[in-house]
Amino acid sequence: MHALIAELYPICRSITGDGFRHTLHRIAREIPLTIHEVASGTRVLDWTVPKEWNIRDAYVKNGRGERVIDFRRSNLHVVNYSVPVHRTLSLAELTPRLFTLPERPAWIPYRTSYYTETWGFCLAHRDLLALEDGDYEVCIDSTLENGHLTYGEYVIAGQRSDEILISCHCCHPSLANDNLSGIAVAIALAQHVAARRPSLSYRFLFIPGTIGSITWLARNEEKLVAIRHGLVLSCLGDRGGLTYKRSRRGDALVDRAATHVLRHTGAGHAILDFVPYGYDERQYCSPGFDLAVGSLTRTPNGRFAEYHTSADDLAFVTPESLADSYARCLEILDILEHDARYVNLNPKGEPQLGRRGIYNAMGGGHLPEFEFGLLWVLNLSDGQHGLLDIAERSGLPFGLIHRCAATLVAHDLLRPPRDGG
Amino acid sequence: MHALIAELYPICRSITGDGFRHTLHRIAREIPLTIHEVASGTRVLDWTVPKEWNIRDAYVKNGRGERVIDFRRSNLHVVNYSVPVHRTLSLAELTPRLFTLPERPAWIPYRTSYYTETWGFCLAHRDLLALEDGDYEVCIDSTLENGHLTYGEYVIAGQRSDEILISCHCCHPSLANDNLSGIAVAIALAQHVAARRPSLSYRFLFIPGTIGSITWLARNEEKLVAIRHGLVLSCLGDRGGLTYKRSRRGDALVDRAATHVLRHTGAGHAILDFVPYGYDERQYCSPGFDLAVGSLTRTPNGRFAEYHTSADDLAFVTPESLADSYARCLEILDILEHDARYVNLNPKGEPQLGRRGIYNAMGGGHLPEFEFGLLWVLNLSDGQHGLLDIAERSGLPFGLIHRCAATLVAHDLLRPPRDGG
Amino acid sequence: MHALIAELYPICRSITGDGFRHTLHRIAREIPLTIHEVASGTRVLDWTVPKEWNIRDAYVKNGRGERVIDFRRSNLHVVNYSVPVHRTLSLAELTPRLFTLPERPAWIPYRTSYYTETWGFCLAHRDLLALEDGDYEVCIDSTLENGHLTYGEYVIAGQRSDEILISCHCCHPSLANDNLSGIAVAIALAQHVAARRPSLSYRFLFIPGTIGSITWLARNEEKLVAIRHGLVLSCLGDRGGLTYKRSRRGDALVDRAATHVLRHTGAGHAILDFVPYGYDERQYCSPGFDLAVGSLTRTPNGRFAEYHTSADDLAFVTPESLADSYARCLEILDILEHDARYVNLNPKGEPQLGRRGIYNAMGGGHLPEFEFGLLWVLNLSDGQHGLLDIAERSGLPFGLIHRCAATLVAHDLLRPPRDGG
Repeated sequence: MHALIAELYPICRSITGDGFRHTLHRIAREIPLTIHEVASGTRVLDWTVPKEWNIRDAYVKNGRGERVIDFRRSNLHVVNYSVPVHRTLSLAELTPRLFTLPERPAWIPYRTSYYTETWGFCLAHRDLLALEDGDYEVCIDSTLENGHLTYGEYVIAGQRSDEILISCHCCHPSLANDNLSGIAVAIALAQHVAARRPSLSYRFLFIPGTIGSITWLARNEEKLVAIRHGLVLSCLGDRGGLTYKRSRRGDALVDRAATHVLRHTGAGHAILDFVPYGYDERQYCSPGFDLAVGSLTRTPNGRFAEYHTSADDLAFVTPESLADSYARCLEILDILEHDARYVNLNPKGEPQLGRRGIYNAMGGGHLPEFEFGLLWVLNLSDGQHGLLDIAERSGLPFGLIHRCAATLVAHDLLRPPRDGG
Repeated sequence: MHALIAELYPICRSITGDGFRHTLHRIAREIPLTIHEVASGTRVLDWTVPKEWNIRDAYVKNGRGERVIDFRRSNLHVVNYSVPVHRTLSLAELTPRLFTLPERPAWIPYRTSYYTETWGFCLAHRDLLALEDGDYEVCIDSTLENGHLTYGEYVIAGQRSDEILISCHCCHPSLANDNLSGIAVAIALAQHVAARRPSLSYRFLFIPGTIGSITWLARNEEKLVAIRHGLVLSCLGDRGGLTYKRSRRGDALVDRAATHVLRHTGAGHAILDFVPYGYDERQYCSPGFDLAVGSLTRTPNGRFAEYHTSADDLAFVTPESLADSYARCLEILDILEHDARYVNLNPKGEPQLGRRGIYNAMGGGHLPEFEFGLLWVLNLSDGQHGLLDIAERSGLPFGLIHRCAATLVAHDLLRPPRDGG
Repeated sequence: MHALIAELYPICRSITGDGFRHTLHRIAREIPLTIHEVASGTRVLDWTVPKEWNIRDAYVKNGRGERVIDFRRSNLHVVNYSVPVHRTLSLAELTPRLFTLPERPAWIPYRTSYYTETWGFCLAHRDLLALEDGDYEVCIDSTLENGHLTYGEYVIAGQRSDEILISCHCCHPSLANDNLSGIAVAIALAQHVAARRPSLSYRFLFIPGTIGSITWLARNEEKLVAIRHGLVLSCLGDRGGLTYKRSRRGDALVDRAATHVLRHTGAGHAILDFVPYGYDERQYCSPGFDLAVGSLTRTPNGRFAEYHTSADDLAFVTPESLADSYARCLEILDILEHDARYVNLNPKGEPQLGRRGIYNAMGGGHLPEFEFGLLWVLNLSDGQHGLLDIAERSGLPFGLIHRCAATLVAHDLLRPPRDGG
């Protein structure tokens, strides 16, 4: 996953344009992505698909013709979606167009202006301080013209038509954690799921933030009824602990599943309530849709100093964190696919497990965890409790409870759910 | 407010009599009070309006004719509602009639005997210890005769007939915090409310404790259905933090509103569950009425050492505390008047706020609180959540949420509630 | 109680056999027990009543004919339910049959093998280390043959047919806390209850663990509907604080009653959620029965080092702990018998308690607890709250609240529940 991130890192992405397209084409070499193009000007819910933005070069040159700000060194130097400009300005005229982080003098901030036509540059504060009085040649060789908004979609049909939505935004330029890490994890999950026949169907979306989810929602409203669970993935590569932000519903299965998995990691983690700010869960969880979509990150957006700066680079994300994020996602998906209400076929008293060879014959000592799991599954499988309920009540991990249920089904002590639900 | 308290402080009030009447007449110079008189012997719920008590003078003189206890120095010296007496007693005979606070030897306690005819004196414990053996002339020049119970009422008609009840007891003699502070704050609130046309109607009651609320309830049972919220005000002038005691219902709007306001003060405060002891909320919250009436104090009754002693004097209450209590009451009333369920008219996805000029055009940085409030109001205005719900969920103050809602209404993004509720 | 424990301690009990019978006969001298015999081979729910086990002697002799392990010194030396054996083995052949506690080298563990026919010995680890190489004569003079499972039952008819079930297991050999302590407390409770006419009926069961409750449940399913509350008693003699483990329902009256009593002890205690492991509550709380049966212990099974070892001896249980356990049980039973919803006959305002002589005439001071209790009972007796609800809300002990209710009934201010419920 880290290698893919390194490959995608230099591309100058935005919410539209060729950088975004190139990114999708690279993803399509990993998984069979369907790429959609939606024309500028198309009405999507309350919004309009904007003009397409492309950029070739940008710089600020001093009186000696030296590029003191150079897009070729970092695509963060240009305010994303800047309109074309080519003129000469004094330093005083230029300064209001320059954005820095005084408290982090070596870092370049990331700024955008998608819906107000303007232009500007971002740079390290120490470089701003080094600018001498005089005239500067300013050039942004960009185009902002009618074109298309592009997004990628990959659907994996499962045994049932109920869907899990995995969404990640791909519109950020050279930022590694936000959100190349989410893209990389989503691709790995898609490859894993596609290699077997999952019980639920999956829909992976690779979209520009906000306008991308709004566009997809506007074009696919009839498909929403099948979306039972969802995760927005981003910022999954930093060294922090995992953070799950609940869906607007707060107690959806995905909320409970993610909480269960994070609690059992044994590592520091955080479970946050829904807030209507963040990534595309804002749109999925708007009140007219109210989908059961939560958000999984490591350190959340805005909570790490490197957020939306040039310091969110390849060194900021680690293979270990990516691997851990991926593993925890699989555990969450495992719960979403396998949580179900089984029924104890011998509900009066405990069945004699020892006779069936699944319980220790020698009494008087302590009970192994697996036998404890068997007792929990039997006791709570009254048609009112699913396996995740049982895992939560017992404090045992879902995977163990699931194995216990399978053992009891094999011994005709438990009836599996009628159609997996 | 403190000046009015100082003016009312010397009057010897009780649950009936001219001291109470004089107090109401003074209040009537501030607000247009209606004064009710209810004859002694009138049955009110399970109680009977008692005889009217008036007192002119009282003393205990030693053998040298010196007043060792003198009503003219403090009206707390006489057990409130003492029957008339004039006789000579030995110190041994007198002592059982004398009440002191041994642990606070300089303070005079406040004692009453409204419903058992007796007499007695209260004095500083150090003064008790200084009494010499010998005979004492005891005189209480009081009358306890058929007359009236008096109370004051002020109704302010609002746009709706639903009422907020503000009740304070006025029966305590020279005690500043309990409850001249409550009286002063209630008057200021009434003046503020009367100066505009409030959305809800208001009823202010200035009554003797217990028997006053029982009398009012007995005579006004048909009006109770309109009382939607209420506050009993007392002990609002001391230097302690605010304390709100919930109504018997526990989750009434007034309970949630007061909790919200106190939490946002940033200062120490306490939220207490209902207990069937305290002031007139005992009667309003009796199970046959169960009104949504809470109690607001600073340090609650019985929790400060000066409570019901001569140390609850003018120095014990401060203009700053009174002003803070008044301001917080206004915030609570603001919630009671303006909490309502708005409806998001664009519930699918977020509306594009930037296009409407109410959202920062430059992306990538941090979100101002007002914009965060807009997102919260939009996200939760699904017909199920009121503005206070949104304030609680978001952690933002009600006033900000209310302003956000008004902004969204002005942009046709939110439908106001049909009739303010 | 401690004397009875000492008398029963030496008997070698098991889940069947004469040791169990002798124990029941001794109990029958204290309370009029009905003794039931159920034949081996009888099907009971998913189980089968096992063969009856009896043992006369057992030993391991070294080459010099000395008993290096001797059943006559402790009946824990034999794995309970060992089949007969008499042969000579080398130390290497014998060792897999020997069970010790290496971390507690002076203690003999307690082990059983009820449902797998085998044999073995338990001994102190230091004695195992002292065994020399050589041949050993091994003898277990036991029988495992068709016979009966035995249990005792004692029903006390109360004013109502609703029952409280008190169950304790009696199948452990020389272990004092687990569960001779439970037996002793149960007998004392039965004697106390039988000496009066309780409002509820009681059923005391003295049974072998697991198979005993399964057998009783299988034979008495039609009686379960009357069981409204229950307690499994065990481990009530050690020096630890009390522990209550909730029923599977979690919020049954017995759960709330035990929680209330333990919280008011002022001593360390624990309230645990139900887990499907422990004693016979496993069977009573299986999902097909789901009885409101909790478990009361001091230190719970498995949580004290002496558990299931020879160190659970007569010195481990104290008369003080037994007396405290007994007293707390009575308090729990008092709540189960007397919790009820009374109705305030004067719900509008407070009734005038002073007029009735049950409230302090002199006002201004602090309220005694009894008067506070009167106000709480009046305020919450709206037909929705029982006395335990009121005790919980007020923080006052149930006994006080119960006395307050009786006082108010005597003054015609409260209507008792129609039929005690």
